[in-house]
Order: sequence, then C-alpha cells, then structure tokens
Amino acid sequence: MNSNFSRLAQATAMNLLWTSANEGMWMPAQITELGAAMRANGLQLDPAQLSRLDTAPLNAIVSLGGCSASFVSPQGLVATNRHCVLESIQYNSKESQDYLTKGFLAKSLGEELPAVPGSRIYVIEDIRDVTADMLKGVSDKLNGFARYERLDRNRKALIAACEEQPNRRCDVESYYGGASYYLQQKLEIQDVRLVYAPALGIGNFGGETDNWTWPRHTGDFGFYRAYVAPDGSSRPYARDNVPYRPKSWLRIASKGVQDGDFVMVVGFPGETNRFRTADEVRFNFARYEPLLQHLLSDYAAQINQTTAGNREAQIRYASILQGVENYKKKLAGDLAGANAIGLDVRKAIEEKAYLDWVADDPARQARYGAAIGELGAMVDENSQASLEGLRQALLNRAQMLSSARTLYRWAKEHEKLDEDRERGFQDRDRNQTVDQLTQIERGYLPDIDRKLFEAALDEYRRLDAKDRDTAFETALDQIGLDRLYAETKLADTATRLGWLDKRAAAFEASDDPFIKLAVALYPGDIAAERAAKDRAGRAQAARATYMQGLRAYWQAIGRPVYPDANGSLRITWGKVSGRTRDGQIWTPFTTAEGLLAKHTGKGEFDAPAAAVAAIRAKNYGPYVAPELGTLPVDFMSTVDITNGNSGSATLNGRGEFVGLAFDGTLDGVISDWAYAADRSRSIHVDSRFMLWTMDKIDGAAWLLKEMGVLPASRS
Amino acid sequence: MNSNFSRLAQATAMNLLWTSANEGMWMPAQITELGAAMRANGLQLDPAQLSRLDTAPLNAIVSLGGCSASFVSPQGLVATNRHCVLESIQYNSKESQDYLTKGFLAKSLGEELPAVPGSRIYVIEDIRDVTADMLKGVSDKLNGFARYERLDRNRKALIAACEEQPNRRCDVESYYGGASYYLQQKLEIQDVRLVYAPALGIGNFGGETDNWTWPRHTGDFGFYRAYVAPDGSSRPYARDNVPYRPKSWLRIASKGVQDGDFVMVVGFPGETNRFRTADEVRFNFARYEPLLQHLLSDYAAQINQTTAGNREAQIRYASILQGVENYKKKLAGDLAGANAIGLDVRKAIEEKAYLDWVADDPARQARYGAAIGELGAMVDENSQASLEGLRQALLNRAQMLSSARTLYRWAKEHEKLDEDRERGFQDRDRNQTVDQLTQIERGYLPDIDRKLFEAALDEYRRLDAKDRDTAFETALDQIGLDRLYAETKLADTATRLGWLDKRAAAFEASDDPFIKLAVALYPGDIAAERAAKDRAGRAQAARATYMQGLRAYWQAIGRPVYPDANGSLRITWGKVSGRTRDGQIWTPFTTAEGLLAKHTGKGEFDAPAAAVAAIRAKNYGPYVAPELGTLPVDFMSTVDITNGNSGSATLNGRGEFVGLAFDGTLDGVISDWAYAADRSRSIHVDSRFMLWTMDKIDGAAWLLKEMGVLPASRS
Repeated sequence: MNSNFSRLAQATAMNLLWTSANEGMWMPAQITELGAAMRANGLQLDPAQLSRLDTAPLNAIVSLGGCSASFVSPQGLVATNRHCVLESIQYNSKESQDYLTKGFLAKSLGEELPAVPGSRIYVIEDIRDVTADMLKGVSDKLNGFARYERLDRNRKALIAACEEQPNRRCDVESYYGGASYYLQQKLEIQDVRLVYAPALGIGNFGGETDNWTWPRHTGDFGFYRAYVAPDGSSRPYARDNVPYRPKSWLRIASKGVQDGDFVMVVGFPGETNRFRTADEVRFNFARYEPLLQHLLSDYAAQINQTTAGNREAQIRYASILQGVENYKKKLAGDLAGANAIGLDVRKAIEEKAYLDWVADDPARQARYGAAIGELGAMVDENSQASLEGLRQALLNRAQMLSSARTLYRWAKEHEKLDEDRERGFQDRDRNQTVDQLTQIERGYLPDIDRKLFEAALDEYRRLDAKDRDTAFETALDQIGLDRLYAETKLADTATRLGWLDKRAAAFEASDDPFIKLAVALYPGDIAAERAAKDRAGRAQAARATYMQGLRAYWQAIGRPVYPDANGSLRITWGKVSGRTRDGQIWTPFTTAEGLLAKHTGKGEFDAPAAAVAAIRAKNYGPYVAPELGTLPVDFMSTVDITNGNSGSATLNGRGEFVGLAFDGTLDGVISDWAYAADRSRSIHVDSRFMLWTMDKIDGAAWLLKEMGVLPASRS
Repeated sequence: MNSNFSRLAQATAMNLLWTSANEGMWMPAQITELGAAMRANGLQLDPAQLSRLDTAPLNAIVSLGGCSASFVSPQGLVATNRHCVLESIQYNSKESQDYLTKGFLAKSLGEELPAVPGSRIYVIEDIRDVTADMLKGVSDKLNGFARYERLDRNRKALIAACEEQPNRRCDVESYYGGASYYLQQKLEIQDVRLVYAPALGIGNFGGETDNWTWPRHTGDFGFYRAYVAPDGSSRPYARDNVPYRPKSWLRIASKGVQDGDFVMVVGFPGETNRFRTADEVRFNFARYEPLLQHLLSDYAAQINQTTAGNREAQIRYASILQGVENYKKKLAGDLAGANAIGLDVRKAIEEKAYLDWVADDPARQARYGAAIGELGAMVDENSQASLEGLRQALLNRAQMLSSARTLYRWAKEHEKLDEDRERGFQDRDRNQTVDQLTQIERGYLPDIDRKLFEAALDEYRRLDAKDRDTAFETALDQIGLDRLYAETKLADTATRLGWLDKRAAAFEASDDPFIKLAVALYPGDIAAERAAKDRAGRAQAARATYMQGLRAYWQAIGRPVYPDANGSLRITWGKVSGRTRDGQIWTPFTTAEGLLAKHTGKGEFDAPAAAVAAIRAKNYGPYVAPELGTLPVDFMSTVDITNGNSGSATLNGRGEFVGLAFDGTLDGVISDWAYAADRSRSIHVDSRFMLWTMDKIDGAAWLLKEMGVLPASRS
C-alpha cells in the first residue's frame, strides 16, 4: 500500500518537527516514553524518578484547587503565584493595613495569617487507573442518559470509597475522551496560612496592561504554609496547629537558568481541547466564542455603566469586572490565534490524514469508522444546546437568583441518599458551597444587581420562545422587579446560609421572590440537565472510540499521545527560549533595568521605592545572571501549559526550583486548541528575582534561611 | 588649563558616540559640515548637492503646511502619507462613496478630485539668512515688549516684501533661539487634487492600537497632484488648470533598502525643544505636561460621556476626540521617556559642562555668563503664565466662543493698516481664517458643546481669582448658559462667516451672547498677550546669547550644532536599524506575513480582501526584498524626525525614493526634548509595499507608469 506508506512517511517527517516542539502535558506514568528525548535535551535526573509520586520532585508538588504550587522547605512552606494567594491577601487587608498594595511578610511563624476561608492545599498521594471500575456495567448498548448515569454512579462510588480515608479528597476524571479514567487521591490540608506576598508594584507590576504580554516584568509569587494538628493529621485552623512536614520539598537552584536550558513544569493544567473534531472546532470559533465575546462585552459595558461615578459600586464589582475583562481578552486572543494559525485548515488536514488511515484498513474501519460520524451527528445538537445554555446562564447574573437556584437544588438533592445526589450537592461539597454562598456579599449591591439583571433579561427575551422558560416568565411577571429586590431576604448572608438546611417544601412555600423564581425555574433546569446528560452519554461512547482510534494512529506514526488537560497532575518540558516574530524578536529574559524603564511611579507601573533604589544602585547581590550581567526578572520557555498551571514550579534538569510559571502571551493562547511550536510560550518569574526581592527589598531572610538559600547562621 | 583640557577630551569622547547616533535636523546649508560623515556612512551623492535648493533632490521636496511631501513624477504627482491627505478623502466621501474605508483611485487626470478647501502645496524656492534685517534697530537696550514689537515689525516687513511676488508665501522663523533668522520663500500652489489613497485597511491598518508602536504594518501613503493655470502660474481650482511641471522629481529606487543601509529624510519637522535649559525642562515635565495630561484626560472623558449612546454626536466629535487621545498618548510617552532616560540628570550634567566651560574663560564669562541666569529668572514667570494660559484656553472649547473671539479680534485688527495688524489677522491670513471658521460645522453640536463648556467652566472656576476674568464672568452670569446656546446665531456657518467683514462697533452693539462674551474677554486677552510679548522680548535677548554660547561650546568640542525644529526644511540622515530592548529586539523590517497575522477582518485590523488573498498566494511580483524573501511593509531607521516630517520622502544614498516617514515609537518621542540614540527610531512605509499595493491590489498602473516604475508600454 504505497499511498499509505508515503502518508506514514510524511506523518513521521512531521513528527520530527513535533519532537523538538515540546508539545504535551504528560501524565507522570508516561514519562518513561519520553525519557530519552528529555535526557537528550538536558534532563539530568533518571526519567523514571519523574513517574514516581512517592519521591521528589513529584511529591513536593501540590494543588491549591485551581492553582498549582510546591513545597520549598521542610516546614511546609509553599511557593505559588501571588495571584493564587490574592484572595487571602484581600481577606486580611483593611484600610489600616493595606497588604494588597504594600505586601505582607510574617516575621515569624506566629505572624502568619489564616488564608481566605475555603483555602486548601492538596498533596497528591496516588493516581491510579480506574477505567475498569468506571466501565463496569457500561455495555456498548447502554447509551445516552442511562450510560451517563451508570458512569456517574460508578464515579461516585469510587470517590466515596477513596474518601473513606480521613482528610482525603479524591477525583475521577476522564482521559482521552472517556477512553480511560484515573483516580487522584489527595491529602487535604485545611489549615492554610499566608506567609509572604510582595507589594503590588512587584507582584502585579504591569497589571492588566502587561497581562498576557511580553516583555514582562511581574514578580508574580507568594508563599503559603501548610499547617496540621500536632499529631500530623489534617484539621481546620487551630492555634496549636503546627507546620506540616512534607516528605519532600524542592531545592532552590544555586544557579539560575539561561537561554536554551532544559526546564520542566509540574502542575495541574485545567482544560485543553486539542482533540476536538474539525466540526467542533469550527463551531467553537465561528459561533460559540464570538457569541460569548459579545455577551461579555455587553456585560462589561453594563457593569461600567451602572457603576459609573459610584466608587463603592466600582470596588464591589471590580472583581467580577476584572474576571469578565480577562476572559474577553483571552477570547480575543483565541479568535485571533485561530485565524493566525489557520486552525480550521490545520484541523481539516489532520482529520483527513487520520480518516484516510482508518479507511486504509478494513479492521480499523470497522472499529473506528463510525465514531467520528457519531460525533459529527451531534455537533448541531450540542452547538444549539451550548448557545442556549450560554444565554440561559444570563439569568444567574442576578446573584440572589443564582443563590436561590443553588439552595433549592441543594434541598431537592438532600431528599436523596448522599450517594444518589448530583455531584456538587453531596455532603463532601457542603463546605465549598457555604464558602461560595458567603463570598457573594463581597461583590453585591442590590441597585447594581437589578440593573444588570434587567440588561440580562433584555438579552434573555431575545431567545426563541422554545428556548425560554414560561414558568419563570410568568412568575417574574407576577412578582415584578420592584418587589423582587424590595422583598427578598436573601441578600442578608446569614439568612441566605440559613436556607442551606431547609427542606424543599419550605422553598415551595416561601414568599421570598427570588426563591419563587428559583422554584419556577427548577423543572426546566432539570429537564435541560437531563438532556445534557443524555447527550454526554452518547458523546462519551463515540468520543472514547474516536480517541482510541487517534491514539492508534499516532502510535503508528511514532508519536506518543498525551490526554487533554483535565486538572490532573501533568509534567511538561521544554527549554528557555525566545521567539521570532514579524519585526521583532522576543529575547527570553527581562531584567531589572527593563522594570525600571517601565516604572512610572503611578498606576500599574509603580514599583516600591526600595526596589527602584536598589535597581538604580545595582544592588543585586548574588542574584545576577552572569550571561545578562544583571538581575533577571522573568523568562520565557517553550513548556506547554495552560490555566491551572499558575504557580507551577519550574524545574531545571536536576529537578531544582528555578522559577514559577504564571502566564503566557495572548497570541499563544490558541495553544489550548492546538499547540503551535512557533508561538506557544510560557512566562515564568525567575527564582533569582524572587530571592532578590525577599533578600534586598522585603527583608525575608528567615524564609530564605528556611529554604536553604541563605546560611542559617546569617543574621 | 588642564581641567579644561580633560573636560574637552571627555566631551570629545562623548562626541564620538554622538557622530554615530545620527542626531540632528540639519539646514541644507549645513550639509557641507557633515558631508564626510554622510559619505562614510553610505551617501553616494555629492554632499554639496544636498545644500542646493535649485536642484534634485531638494527641489522635489514640498510642504503641505503641517505635513511634508515630494514630487514623484514630471506631472506634479506628490507622494505623502495617507494621514496627510485624510481630510481630502473625508471631504470627498459620502455615504454612497465611502473613500475613507474603500480608498480612492482616480483612473485618469480627469477623475482627480479637489482636495479639501485650504489645501496647499508649497514649493521651496529660497531660504536666506535675514538675521541682519531682523535685528535692525534691535539694540541691546531694547528689551521686553518694545524688543518684541521691533522684531515683529521687521519680520512683517520682510514677509510683505517677499510676498509682493505673486503666489508666494514667505515665513521668517527664529533659529537658535533668535540668534539667527531665515526667510523661506515658497511658491504656493492653490489647486491641489486628490489622486489616490489606499483603503483604510492598508492606509491605517492597525489604527490607534498600533499608533506609535512597532512592529507596524501600516501603508500610510497617498497621492496629491499639483495643478496650475495653463500658463504655469498658480491659481485656485479651475477646470482647465493643468498639472504643474516641477523642476525635479524623485526617482523611485529600483532596489529597496536593507538592514544597515544609509537613508536620509528631507522634510519639515515642526518643533523640538532640545536646547531648553535644565530648569525649563524640569518645569515642563514636573508641572506643565502633567497638568496638560490631566486636562486632556478630563476632556476625553467628558467627550466620551456627553456623546455616549448618541451616534451622530460620536461621529461629529470623533476628530476632536482622536486629536485629544493622540496628544494624551504622546504626553504619556514624553513623561515616561523623560523618566526612562533620566532627562533631568542628563540636562543638569550637560548644562554644568557648558557652564564650566563658560566659567573657564573670562571673555566667555563676560559674553555668555549672564544669559542663562536671565532665562532662569524668567522660568517661574513663564511657568506661571503657561499654566494659566493652559487653563484659560479651556474657554475656547466652546467653539462659538472661540469663533467669536477670532472674529472680534479680526475686526479690531482691521481698524489698523495691514502691516500693523497682528500676525494671523493680516489680509494674507484671510483664506485660512475662512477655512477654519467654516470647518467648525463638521464637529459641532450645541448640546454637546454646552456640556463640554460647562465642564470647562468648572475647571476655569478653580483658578485663583487673579487668574480669572471678572468682565467675562459678569457677562456670563448676566446671559446664562440657556440663553447663550438658545440665542446665538453663530452656529449657522453663513452667519458666522458674515461677521468677518463687520466692524468692531457692530460686535460691541451685538446681542449675540457669544459675541458679548468675546467682547468682554477682549481687554483681558489683549493684556495677557501684551504680557506674553514682553516676556518673549526679554527671553529672545537672553536665549539668543545662551544659544550663541552653546554653539561656541559645541564647536569647541568638535560637534556641529543644528537649530531646534521650527517647521523649516531640514535634512536628517541615518541608517536602517532595529533596536534592542529589554526582553526583545525590534528587527528593522515588517512583512506582509506579519500584516496577515494581525488581520482579523474586523475593526482596525481589517485588510482588504484582495490584499489578504494576494498575501496568502504570495503574489508579490518584483516587490520582494531578497534578504527577507518576502514583501516588506514598514521599516525602521535612526533618522531624527518629529511631527511635521509626516509624509517626508525617505531617500537612499543615491537620493532615490525608498519610502515615506510616517511615525516613531512612543518610547522614543522624548527625542523631541533629547535625542536618545538607543531609542530614537523613525518608522517608514517601504516603497515596495506602496508599489505592490498600487500594482497588485488597487490597479494603479497608470500612476506607476507615470512614476517610471512600470514601462509606459505595459497595459
């Protein structure tokens, strides 16, 4: 089969390109496949060591739930990004002690402050393949809703069994589109304290203006510490808790990285969509993201408009607005990137190569041939549902409606046994739900909420009648917006939380207008959810087969395959590297002098006076990069990361700590959909800048001693 | 005098740095001083040729008044920036023929369109030293107002004598702070026609987002044609006018430039402040520009706020708003740049070196010693006046008040003989005044104007009582804002223009409320103007001496001195060159592929479909840069330019046309105050991109033939 041969040869040639491109967020168990390439590129550790969860460096890596982090001392000191500890800084700040602007440094263990409620440090103890358990009873004939339910029941049983061990959190995620499932078992540390965060003018230097850009000069780092009971067991905050003693911690490299050096990042990337079909990609970029962008643009404009001239409102809604703006920026980057790399065409070519390979062999055709067609048949249906879901979610912009929906659902689910409840509404989810329902008070003003809800309703009313909810509309008409906001008691946090323990009947009898709306919406919500589960059940079967085919194809062309990011522990490796762009070259390091050049003393570019003075005096101590002749600030690498990797330790070839990943560039965010070797770059804060800030600016010598950077004898 | 020697040695060493830095906007007569350096760097012409106004290339260079341009064909075809012909595109656009978006191309001479009224092409015929004439009767004892008046009279007499020749415009500008004066004599071509401008998506690709930035992908070019009467004399638009036949025109280089190539720019830079004293610089950056920035920020916010949701208002005020935003951006660049290059310190060091040199020699001390002290003594006074002037000018944001002030002043001046009238109010200024008073209608809406005026009044009222105008305030109180806008007839263009021929008494008797305000403001305006003239008279004497001293000092250290830019013809040379920055390198060329990468098909990044298709197909014809292997778009050079150089021809070492200067970068605008070799860069559209657009995208073959780029036989 000549055509097939040449196709393989071609694919293999493409593959040569790929091996130099550092694509891939690998599960630890896969590292053995890559060991040779990693060694050839500068890894000095035994690759097998990177597959083991019970030894360094992997057992020094922790999750904060949404962010990544790592132990950097035997006393449970945890390094991560400042933006990952931001809420804890906010939580401890008052007008009289502005840690947000000035930074915070505990001078001793006793001065460390409780992190924001809900903060957790998760230590990974085990990752095991549970595919067989998950697929128990999931026959080929089981499809749609029934299939979804069976998988869900199996998952909940696995999690419940795992969490019978005290202080453990466990998750079962799908890998390769549901072809595999792994369980992650994590020790949950519940007493998390804020140790240190540099000033705003270091930790968020450049602010929104520099966000997603290069050259970058942000010292985005901060420290937590894990505390446990004196007997070593995990328990909530208590005064006599003691620092957790991790089995391993990362050593700070005595020498920083330089251009071309091997680096790897270990952390918890959240979500990528690299294995979607061409049709799914087309829908995303032609319809879904443009609509989302439009909705978010309107939402940002509405927030700006309704809070204009009202300082308190602006402060309360700043966090929501920032989230919206950041997402908008990311979407713009996605859309521009898809266009720039010709994603549609790339996807079509890749998919055709795969389908040709499938068609070349009757056995393959029999096994994999139908799956992509099944996924294709669902694209329209899924697309329609996504678009409607997007617009339906508008209603949740009314924060008390969103709360009431959660509370009523909580009550309905609590009529069942815990193991039968929907995920997110089980006893294990109670703490998190309380935290979420509490936090609303920080960003809520009824007048503003009402105006934003009115705008959301305008958008909602533009939906086709079939996509709207008559029961909800009737209820809303009867109540009217005036009464809605005048009569609700949910805005009071204690009252709101009080509903968490009430029965569904109490909701149904309630006069609270938002609760009435939530009750009216419930049947529609449940129907939509059931339809979504039915689609998910059908998709899982097809997608698992499709991914099995893709993996077989990739294996045939000699290319190892990693699963899409799903929040689980991953390793990615690459090298310190700049980028060539049109009309410019991005060189891989920024320096203190560049920071000074951006420093205006105002707004987002306002470095602390001590830092400015130290840079002017070139007071860099031992933190100079010899190749640069000065203090590095941030560096860029080819490692393949995404959201969730924030705070991930960056390691050199010896597994030593050389920095923290914290961002990428806007023209590279398309890598969530397709890794592009020429543009995918990560941005890291250089460990030397961290240490310099701690040593020369903030006087954090005691932490540097604890980390082994300064000799313990030094005063 | 050893100390002096070493100081000179040091200065001479610094000078070595300077000669490689391409600083300087040189008068043509100075080129002989620089000839050797220019030849060594790649000039192939005889430098003497660049001092001659009567031969190529200099007699192919023209001014548009505010922009620079050049003849590029024997038929009077004039190349300049698109942004320099923008008003003419707007003027000829209607909803049904959207030249602004789609571009405009005349297919033949007959299709060329009249440029916006007031458009002129000025051909430089002579530049002569008139210092002796200007200083006639200006004795050392003549100071303050009397000195100013004497200089003003001498200037007007020189201009009047020069303009006795028909169709000439003449100006006498001060050089070296009034140490020298030169008269520029210009042929004024009054029939200017729009020939060609590319589409918005080429000519302003990147828009505000890319303005002042690199990498840049803007094809900022367009063409006018000069028309004259059949007998060759200049006259206003007439159907039977014929193309002007210039004595010379620039040849389009058959080969474009590459990295490191010698380039020069010939044009009319508007204003620089490189020879201000350290105190003056300090005031500018510590007080003046921050206040101006604050006022403009408020103004922009007010325009945005008052026009929000009102599409017509937004369109009408778009031009004012864009001007304000652009100025704001420039100021931000100035302020950041001053900080980045340590301008204060640099100025202090330079000034101290000069003062030490003066103090080293009693004769020098006697001659130059006092001048800087005299300038210093005036800094406070000038500063105070600048700040007040800035805030007083707020009142002119009421466009009808601004018009009324102009009109009443016009009437008052016309009670004098023409030669005694204030500059700007002489018969020679009438056409321009009519144009200005007419153009207001395009950007005026009474409701918006009123709101902006109210905001301006709020700011005005914050002035100290002594800086305010009681007569104005009394008149305003009597009239009230309602009547002001309800009763004025000035908003009608014909009525407004009608006042241009009325006598002062008619104004004083008028009931038009804005005219009443203008009459009330008049005595204060005149008093402030007289005070300003008195300061100017005192400053001229001191500054001329100071600059003579500085020139002597610079000569002593072997450094030629050029005068600050003042709108007169200048030559600057340098080389095609990128820049190293922190974390990046700017490489000197951008390419069509980079343009395509920025193309989103929306907003400011929406290249025409034909261009996108041609780039995708790599249909570049002969316009590829061999070193780049593709079509260049823009390039960067070290030539030293500023506002007013927009549209300047960029020439290679043979004096051939290789592009058009059109911008700089924001972090280089500080060069208006101090040239910084490491950051001052100009941005040029590459002639190959111009020709490609004309040839492959817009089908402008007839113009390419006329320019000698395509053989005349080609169809």
